[in-house]
Amino acid sequence: MATVRLWTDEDVAKSPRVKAVFEDIRMTRKTDFVNNFWRALANQPAVLERTWASVKEIMVAPGMLDPLTKEMIYVAVSATNACSYCIHSHTAAARAKGMTDEQYAELAAIIGMANETNALASALQIPVDKEFDME
Amino acid sequence: MATVRLWTDEDVAKSPRVKAVFEDIRMTRKTDFVNNFWRALANQPAVLERTWASVKEIMVAPGMLDPLTKEMIYVAVSATNACSYCIHSHTAAARAKGMTDEQYAELAAIIGMANETNALASALQIPVDKEFDME
Amino acid sequence: MATVRLWTDEDVAKSPRVKAVFEDIRMTRKTDFVNNFWRALANQPAVLERTWASVKEIMVAPGMLDPLTKEMIYVAVSATNACSYCIHSHTAAARAKGMTDEQYAELAAIIGMANETNALASALQIPVDKEFDME
Amino acid sequence: MATVRLWTDEDVAKSPRVKAVFEDIRMTRKTDFVNNFWRALANQPAVLERTWASVKEIMVAPGMLDPLTKEMIYVAVSATNACSYCIHSHTAAARAKGMTDEQYAELAAIIGMANETNALASALQIPVDKEFDME
Amino acid sequence: MATVRLWTDEDVAKSPRVKAVFEDIRMTRKTDFVNNFWRALANQPAVLERTWASVKEIMVAPGMLDPLTKEMIYVAVSATNACSYCIHSHTAAARAKGMTDEQYAELAAIIGMANETNALASALQIPVDKEFDME
Amino acid sequence: MATVRLWTDEDVAKSPRVKAVFEDIRMTRKTDFVNNFWRALANQPAVLERTWASVKEIMVAPGMLDPLTKEMIYVAVSATNACSYCIHSHTAAARAKGMTDEQYAELAAIIGMANETNALASALQIPVDKEFDME
Repeated sequence: MATVRLWTDEDVAKSPRVKAVFEDIRMTRKTDFVNNFWRALANQPAVLERTWASVKEIMVAPGMLDPLTKEMIYVAVSATNACSYCIHSHTAAARAKGMTDEQYAELAAIIGMANETNALASALQIPVDKEFDME
Repeated sequence: MATVRLWTDEDVAKSPRVKAVFEDIRMTRKTDFVNNFWRALANQPAVLERTWASVKEIMVAPGMLDPLTKEMIYVAVSATNACSYCIHSHTAAARAKGMTDEQYAELAAIIGMANETNALASALQIPVDKEFDME
Repeated sequence: MATVRLWTDEDVAKSPRVKAVFEDIRMTRKTDFVNNFWRALANQPAVLERTWASVKEIMVAPGMLDPLTKEMIYVAVSATNACSYCIHSHTAAARAKGMTDEQYAELAAIIGMANETNALASALQIPVDKEFDME
Repeated sequence: MATVRLWTDEDVAKSPRVKAVFEDIRMTRKTDFVNNFWRALANQPAVLERTWASVKEIMVAPGMLDPLTKEMIYVAVSATNACSYCIHSHTAAARAKGMTDEQYAELAAIIGMANETNALASALQIPVDKEFDME
Repeated sequence: MATVRLWTDEDVAKSPRVKAVFEDIRMTRKTDFVNNFWRALANQPAVLERTWASVKEIMVAPGMLDPLTKEMIYVAVSATNACSYCIHSHTAAARAKGMTDEQYAELAAIIGMANETNALASALQIPVDKEFDME
Repeated sequence: MATVRLWTDEDVAKSPRVKAVFEDIRMTRKTDFVNNFWRALANQPAVLERTWASVKEIMVAPGMLDPLTKEMIYVAVSATNACSYCIHSHTAAARAKGMTDEQYAELAAIIGMANETNALASALQIPVDKEFDME
């Protein structure tokens, strides 16, 4: 159960602001499916518009990183935050963008290892080597 | 200040187990520089050996993901955990493996955005769409 | 499924220590409903007493911050920790104390944004400006 | 040491995009002081523009929550994430917006208590009461 | 729903690498029951082998800390990370190793308190006393 | 730099409430040294009194868990939260209570491993086995 109402397509049809964002999501992603994240944000049109604009610019617009790499980075953050919804949605997105089982296995191994060495470095309060100073 | 002693090269020379790992780190990485993380783990030879073996297998051995992608995923986890040491060491490693300023800018943007939408999805307790079920 | 038994009212009736706390919760909150958090802590009377005493002093007793502001701060912490139970209970509490949909939308936006800029500041390891030093 | 260069005012003067954002920050905040967060983001003009636009809309534009409440929520998230930079900058901002020592004491107490009960609820895996279901 | 398939015993029988690990888990733990964690990792034989080898060395092999203490430490980390699966599996393991209700009550109290004072120390950015310097 | 003033012994002497707590800390711990955590909380006498009372009851009063085990659990939570102050103070406390280098090595290994498997279980969204259900 969400803490807010999830907007159905009927609800969306009644709000021009929300409708515009949903249409852009569908057109950009070339699919009629709009996932619950956006149906929850629909309660807050300003947040919906701003979040979609950012996602579109960061995750969809062509950049230096390829779309699959971006999704795997998203999965890594989501797993570290234990955000169940985000893990599911971005793992599905990564698969849709071509992530193979072998790549996923490596991704999971890196996420596990990074969390382990992060905890070790924090536990031991290791000082940063001066060699890592970029200046 | 660390919670354990950081081993100097003189200390390392006196312990065959630690020495063997340090030599493998130097040979594998093709550099004489061994960073503080390993000098801290040296107090715990078993942890040192196991951690280096895992890092070597996950981060160094050839796999499906290229070395730079792996380092960027590591940076994403480290930033999410606010692990200062790990952020510095893996950002330096990513640069050493060719990360450009433009790629780094995109990586930072994704890390920020993922943490934002993770928090939104958690705050709103959005239920996972059945479409994301892999089965 | 909890890792401990949730006490029913019948269970509570049999333990004078637990009964006393539950009666105070009901009287203080002016409702017969006692939520699962307290029914779980009932297994640990000392923790139950201490936790309720703290909650009563911090969240219920009159102070400088109004009750709704306190609940919204609680929601912000809970969302950042991805504590599902706490998000639900404190969002419900905030609504019961008058939080409007518009206020909730702003709260969610701040929680999202704060987590984003926290991640950016950590990723870039930005040094604290001397102007922020309170001394 | 940051992982990116912090832009000086001389650097800023050379980039029209960055200069425009810095001028808007100064005008909006009515102060010549621009803190390191923005000097770090300046390396990434697109991230700088988008982040400032969001901060301006969420934290500066008039809304349902007063500016001080917003800053205290920001401090709560930052403390939970252990983001040193963010704790310093937003605590300073909250003080500048009128937070008294008494309000700060209450804020800290709530942050501590919320993190405690979050951990208890997670440790005991307490199921959400059906009474908290908004539907 | 997991993001990967959970291997049944029939699946396991078909993969020599996975089968070898499952047999060692069963023999080491002296039970036929193999929990879902390993059935999920089975999709990634290398991760499965490495993780089990580490768990066996750290959690099963005799050391300086007794098995129950180890499990309680594991529960503390898992609760702090809000990892539902891990909280359930390691609380069950701790009970199987003799954790009494009284010990569990104390463990929960410490986990709650530690998260509270962690948040307070972070919120107030308390500098480390020079007396804590090990050197 | 803390976000609040750290009270010197001269400051403490002027506040009867704070003085009473400091005297109890000194008497209970049998040392004249009072660490910065309490000097920071001194700004908030109610928080100071409540926190010390809880710490005294949970960490100092005799219970089912021995003092060293309690401190190691505290270190595990603090490392997972990346709370630098807490890691230093509780690692020092654990050493003072007899933690050997070998025990510390095992503690660190468990903290690292637990964070790794937590991340793996979250990443793969592994469902809880029905065998772990306590009911």
